[in-house]
Amino acid sequence: MDNNMLGGKSIILRLEINIHEIKFGKVAAAIFEAGGDIVAMDVIQTSQNMTVRDITITVADAIDIHKITEAVKNLQGVSLVNVSDRTFLLHLGGKIEIKPKTPIQNRDDLSRVYTPDVARVCMAIHEEPRKAFTLTVKRNTVAVISDGSAVLGLGNIGPYAAMPVMEGKSMLFKQFADVDSYPICLDTQDTEQIIATIKAIAPGFGGINLEDISSPRCFEIEQRLREELDIPVFHDDQHGTAVVLYAALINALKIVGKSIDEIKVVVCGIGAAGVACSKILLSAGVKEIVGVDRDGALTADKKYDNAIWQWYAEHTNPYRIQGSLQEAIQGADVFIGLSAGGLLHREDVMEMAENPVVFAMANPTPEIRPEEAEDIVAVMATGRSDYPNQINNVLCFPGIFRGALDCRATTINEEMKLAAAEAIASSITDEERNRFYIIPSVFNQQVVKAIRDLVIKAAMKTGVARRIPREYR
Amino acid sequence: MDNNMLGGKSIILRLEINIHEIKFGKVAAAIFEAGGDIVAMDVIQTSQNMTVRDITITVADAIDIHKITEAVKNLQGVSLVNVSDRTFLLHLGGKIEIKPKTPIQNRDDLSRVYTPDVARVCMAIHEEPRKAFTLTVKRNTVAVISDGSAVLGLGNIGPYAAMPVMEGKSMLFKQFADVDSYPICLDTQDTEQIIATIKAIAPGFGGINLEDISSPRCFEIEQRLREELDIPVFHDDQHGTAVVLYAALINALKIVGKSIDEIKVVVCGIGAAGVACSKILLSAGVKEIVGVDRDGALTADKKYDNAIWQWYAEHTNPYRIQGSLQEAIQGADVFIGLSAGGLLHREDVMEMAENPVVFAMANPTPEIRPEEAEDIVAVMATGRSDYPNQINNVLCFPGIFRGALDCRATTINEEMKLAAAEAIASSITDEERNRFYIIPSVFNQQVVKAIRDLVIKAAMKTGVARRIPREYR
Repeated sequence: MDNNMLGGKSIILRLEINIHEIKFGKVAAAIFEAGGDIVAMDVIQTSQNMTVRDITITVADAIDIHKITEAVKNLQGVSLVNVSDRTFLLHLGGKIEIKPKTPIQNRDDLSRVYTPDVARVCMAIHEEPRKAFTLTVKRNTVAVISDGSAVLGLGNIGPYAAMPVMEGKSMLFKQFADVDSYPICLDTQDTEQIIATIKAIAPGFGGINLEDISSPRCFEIEQRLREELDIPVFHDDQHGTAVVLYAALINALKIVGKSIDEIKVVVCGIGAAGVACSKILLSAGVKEIVGVDRDGALTADKKYDNAIWQWYAEHTNPYRIQGSLQEAIQGADVFIGLSAGGLLHREDVMEMAENPVVFAMANPTPEIRPEEAEDIVAVMATGRSDYPNQINNVLCFPGIFRGALDCRATTINEEMKLAAAEAIASSITDEERNRFYIIPSVFNQQVVKAIRDLVIKAAMKTGVARRIPREYR
Repeated sequence: MDNNMLGGKSIILRLEINIHEIKFGKVAAAIFEAGGDIVAMDVIQTSQNMTVRDITITVADAIDIHKITEAVKNLQGVSLVNVSDRTFLLHLGGKIEIKPKTPIQNRDDLSRVYTPDVARVCMAIHEEPRKAFTLTVKRNTVAVISDGSAVLGLGNIGPYAAMPVMEGKSMLFKQFADVDSYPICLDTQDTEQIIATIKAIAPGFGGINLEDISSPRCFEIEQRLREELDIPVFHDDQHGTAVVLYAALINALKIVGKSIDEIKVVVCGIGAAGVACSKILLSAGVKEIVGVDRDGALTADKKYDNAIWQWYAEHTNPYRIQGSLQEAIQGADVFIGLSAGGLLHREDVMEMAENPVVFAMANPTPEIRPEEAEDIVAVMATGRSDYPNQINNVLCFPGIFRGALDCRATTINEEMKLAAAEAIASSITDEERNRFYIIPSVFNQQVVKAIRDLVIKAAMKTGVARRIPREYR
């Protein structure tokens, strides 16, 4: 746990102190000796024998926290009830709430939003089901659904532990795009069961954002749901990443003065995100993509047990390049890393074509650290917020769903994803664009609106919009 | 549609008017002639040929609405886009929204509620799953789930049309008890599929409120979920009604001076609510209950295909009374109707014991109208808000779940339901209580707190509380 991961140098210890066995002064001394500085103390509860206190402590670094908690645990008469820090405190009781849009103050209000008058609204929908989009939360609501099988970089931590990520996503949906979204974590990792469950709960939602579902199940789950539901189903780990990556590439290519149809791209790490990134690049017109994974370059000359790798090998690598990453990267214009830290070396970058573009997106450690390659690359991007050019899918999902909901799209298709990428890229002007600024900040308030508008136009053009927003009529 | 059902005498017509074909004056005249009074007009959109206007109209009664819309439809050059009234306008886009509890204003906020720092919270839950109750919305959230098979009195209208009721319920949960709740309508009516779906989505919820699921499936669904989940599962149509009914009965018996263990009760209508009401009365100590349905009194002398009826016959009617409602009701102290309008007659009430108590809860038309029997009953209650003593389950569900969530109950057991009923009954003092006031208003702000406190005590006493709220430690 490094200091960045600690997220704040302030912690709160809740201590239950036996007042006959120990004086608080002794507790304070122990905390001080272990490196802590007490800045506040709140008495939570007292009885004849016990006192429960919240002690707020600032610490210099994370190691001190361990020292302090050990010191406190060793004191006779003190029991450590809980350790919190600002991040944990923000999570108490969850991060979202459900609010009525109008108050129910009297019988008249009650009879409108509930029985008996709600019956008329129910019957209106029963007679004309598409009115569910007008008269229920379906109009503006996306389900954020995970089975907890591939959460962040943490792996298969299950549905309970995945909830904080999904709640965070719901916050972002609302804050950035005024999309209501509800987090649902599934207590099953069976593909058919997941599909059946999501289909069963779909009526109240206008879209489904799949999240942190492990590969290769994520491909079948998404594909089946896309076929079997009439609302957008979008696996963000795949397509959110792909959209933002392509947006970054659009601007990077402008800087190096290369055209999308003449570049050679090496994609390292052919999992969910790697496949999706490759697909969007194929749709965008890239002719030569070479995928590399554990076995080296994927090529149609070989057979793969993994169905997705087989598909990949058949649809990329036109010159059937074989061998390791070091061989595949010879003469490449663009490196896209979605694999693991340290896989790309400075010598490899030196083998790339002139003005190489390196997107090293492994988290938390990139395939190559920017400081290692900065002097020999034209443009560099990572997945991290502490280097320039962060490829962050927070840039995509709020706006793309905003657009899809506003035109009641039946799906989010390839054209809509390309449009979203173009919107993100174009939110940086020609004057602003430089090798350290190819992608806007997630706090750039223009981005969501820009994505929404282009996504709606793409949906209308491809015939998947069920409603034409007034400004386009 | 009577005037009460209209819920407001104001409607809004959205008209698209071809400005070359008709002048607005002619439209206004047609509306006036059909009985409408134009009180406002808003221009929504105009083009060279068309103008779209919202016309707000007050009407004397609902019949006029039909006349007006027909008159408008017959006009050349006018097309009626939409008709709304206040109730429909309140439902536009749904009645609830999801809000972040804290804003995300900068990178620092983002890194706490989302990546990278959320990972620490995820891992804390992964290591100790019960922390999901502390660090996620599970602490305060109930799923309101229906399959749309028995919605209000409307029948099997399906999941889309059921949403407005479930959204209304979510509003009430929040407004009355600060419980967050999310409405989920299921696109399946298969018992096993419903059970599997609810189990799959349960991790993020602290309780499950089942709603408007038809009998007899509702019994198995609830029973199985109660066995297979470790959070409360509560079918409100059964138990909410039962709790409020028993609360009303406690106070009615005080008025007539009878004891719960000496009364004879006739329950008319042995569906989901009838069974639940009978069960709570058995738990409360009633010795003689006779259930009556289409086939007459349920008795252990007969065999029933319906498993619930068979159970019912074996556990009630100790004297094995046979025959119709008219025969069963002889000498009864209490009539409980959960059947259909008009089934009970004045002559039947005259055959009851002295000081009869009649709860005629069929909606919208009671088994007997209060005006028909008022002079010969001691206490009368209905399901309607326009008569005294409304048996309304809005009185129960917010408080009972507030209590269950606050002590992290694993279930809502019989003792907790009895406690909730006692809390509701006791919120009317001895001085206040009279034959027209045996049950508090749903807007009585004391009720939720009273229920919560007694429910927590009952949960602690029966060993189903996983957390002791601070005030009880």
